[in-house]
Amino acid sequence: MASKQILVVPGDGIGQEVTAVGKKVLDKIAGKFGHTFTYDEALVGHAAIEATGNPLPDETLAKMKNSDAVLFGAVGHPKYDNDPSAKVRPEQGLLKMRKELGLYANLRPIKLFDELLGASSIKEDILRGADILFFRELTGDIYFGEKGRKNNGDTAYDLAEYSRFEVERIARKAFDSARTRRKKLCSVDKANVLETSRLWREVVQKIAPEYPDVEVEYQFVDATAMLLIKDPKRFDVVVTANLFGDILTDEASQIAGSMGMLASASIGDGTGVYEPIHGSAHDITGKGIANPLASVLSAALLLDISFGMKEESELVISAVDKLLKAGFRSSDIADAGTPAEKILGTEAMGEQVLNFI
Amino acid sequence: MASKQILVVPGDGIGQEVTAVGKKVLDKIAGKFGHTFTYDEALVGHAAIEATGNPLPDETLAKMKNSDAVLFGAVGHPKYDNDPSAKVRPEQGLLKMRKELGLYANLRPIKLFDELLGASSIKEDILRGADILFFRELTGDIYFGEKGRKNNGDTAYDLAEYSRFEVERIARKAFDSARTRRKKLCSVDKANVLETSRLWREVVQKIAPEYPDVEVEYQFVDATAMLLIKDPKRFDVVVTANLFGDILTDEASQIAGSMGMLASASIGDGTGVYEPIHGSAHDITGKGIANPLASVLSAALLLDISFGMKEESELVISAVDKLLKAGFRSSDIADAGTPAEKILGTEAMGEQVLNFI
Ligand SMILES: CC(C)[C@H](C(=O)O)[C@@H](O)C(=O)O
Ligand SMILES: CC(C)[C@H](C(=O)O)[C@@H](O)C(=O)O
Repeated sequence: MASKQILVVPGDGIGQEVTAVGKKVLDKIAGKFGHTFTYDEALVGHAAIEATGNPLPDETLAKMKNSDAVLFGAVGHPKYDNDPSAKVRPEQGLLKMRKELGLYANLRPIKLFDELLGASSIKEDILRGADILFFRELTGDIYFGEKGRKNNGDTAYDLAEYSRFEVERIARKAFDSARTRRKKLCSVDKANVLETSRLWREVVQKIAPEYPDVEVEYQFVDATAMLLIKDPKRFDVVVTANLFGDILTDEASQIAGSMGMLASASIGDGTGVYEPIHGSAHDITGKGIANPLASVLSAALLLDISFGMKEESELVISAVDKLLKAGFRSSDIADAGTPAEKILGTEAMGEQVLNFI
Repeated sequence: MASKQILVVPGDGIGQEVTAVGKKVLDKIAGKFGHTFTYDEALVGHAAIEATGNPLPDETLAKMKNSDAVLFGAVGHPKYDNDPSAKVRPEQGLLKMRKELGLYANLRPIKLFDELLGASSIKEDILRGADILFFRELTGDIYFGEKGRKNNGDTAYDLAEYSRFEVERIARKAFDSARTRRKKLCSVDKANVLETSRLWREVVQKIAPEYPDVEVEYQFVDATAMLLIKDPKRFDVVVTANLFGDILTDEASQIAGSMGMLASASIGDGTGVYEPIHGSAHDITGKGIANPLASVLSAALLLDISFGMKEESELVISAVDKLLKAGFRSSDIADAGTPAEKILGTEAMGEQVLNFI
């Protein structure tokens, strides 16, 4: 029986709707196992800009640092996307949070629930059994290097940078994890063109002998983007740089049937942050139809990784599994065969998760 | 009846085997239409390093500049891939060629031949009717900015850069092309993070009003990587930066059933270069099993774009179509239902193309 302080940071768009469900699930688990979870809330992204002018207010950051874990929603707003000249943007809040909390490792497990085999655009025999864990580096690369304009604004630049230390710490996390799984690691880079990738490959090659039980493979990012669809089962653990990880994990969401099913854990030096990999999805915000399962599965990762509560975490995952087996679907994972009465909105999906816990 | 000088540059690995077929097809077309095509050959990549120490010898470059078109194979060698410290690399030849010839626009048409619907890992109903034309910028971005090491080699960096002019000329090519197709353009960037992407979006937004008949959409690269698999039919023309184009077009090869089917045209200020999007594939080099159709279809693009020979180009494409309808397959596009006697090697596939011309 543990006492934990959880910060809920819904952010923008459907972030509000889905974290509300994630929080209810945490609460139900606390009750069932006799834990005491206390909650606080804080602003980030567009919501924080509207309230304070700052996408990551100091108060939010302080609360994050003082919590045992953060349940995060999503950030972003179409207003900024279509205004390339905006100086203050919701995403700055997200990136600053990652940097300030030292969240250098972003874990994105890609696993298909059997019941969703039909929901993917990929053929069932290609998918069945696929189970990939991505380690995306999250505080370096072209995301955080110097960026700006020169020649009177006519030339734009972004600097990508990696240090040996940054590559080594994420690579070690990936190797350690591969050991507990199918013992295969694929390191993805673009070493035939980029110097940062050559350093990346050098470092992985150098530490590989310390993990003789792990079989290492090196792939270029373009080939990987192809192989993920052609033969997802060939991958076990994948480790890659920030930008490549961003692209490849969104692509890999199709292996899991829908982006609405994918959770992520961002960990590093301090408090861990748990969030869906989907974005703020303003096109469906407020309609009550967003799939809350990515937030629910983020809560499961939170229990497991930040609190070491394996049993609690597995109970949440098995509740999701049971809900799917019972035929319930949010609209993003429904298919032609789903009866109308089994297609549920965000809250009703949440109720079913609670039922099955 | 035209007289044309064609330079064949096989490069490395299966580049040799597949360009041999592409050349035979060009020759057959010349004979049939009474054109005079004369050929020369030149070295590039690993083959050129072995012979001269230079991945793009001056002689090769001079021959390219003096030709009416270049039929290109592939470059690359595993020896360099696994040696991040190699100073001379095959890919430098490819990149230098692109820069020196001003090949700023790389066109990658992604179209599925009906007979290959079964060969893709994507479901047939998702694929049927998909037809995408990528415009990948090819002489800028992180490929060509300054790169190197600092802190005694412990930090690596790569600079991404784009100027307004570079974005505008590729965007205009894409808009012009969209006009001749389904009048939809998707511009792909990462404007929520990168300054080069914000410039990119700014420029596309600025010229869009000049093409009121073209419907423009802006997508982030991560979302695009997902949407390409989820709903490939939503795309018509896609325009994007060098690195994003590299990743997305390899991914999109799965829409066409196999990488072995995809041709590309690199055009710009001078001689056009036509090449498969697949690489040197050393794992199957010398086995005589490489699919030559990407080179054959590259020859078709060459006839169309560099020589303005539409009828000749269409005859080549329809020969490929007939060959597939007749049930012939190279091993990469064969499936469980392909009878063994219809699975052909590189040369035999080539013979069938010639038969059907
Ligand atoms: C919103 C955006 C800045 C972010 C990223 O690119 O990291 C998102 O796509 C993600 O993957 O978390
Ligand atoms: C070989 C490599 C340098 C090249 C690239 O990245 O441009 C290749 O992947 C391509 O797409 O033509």
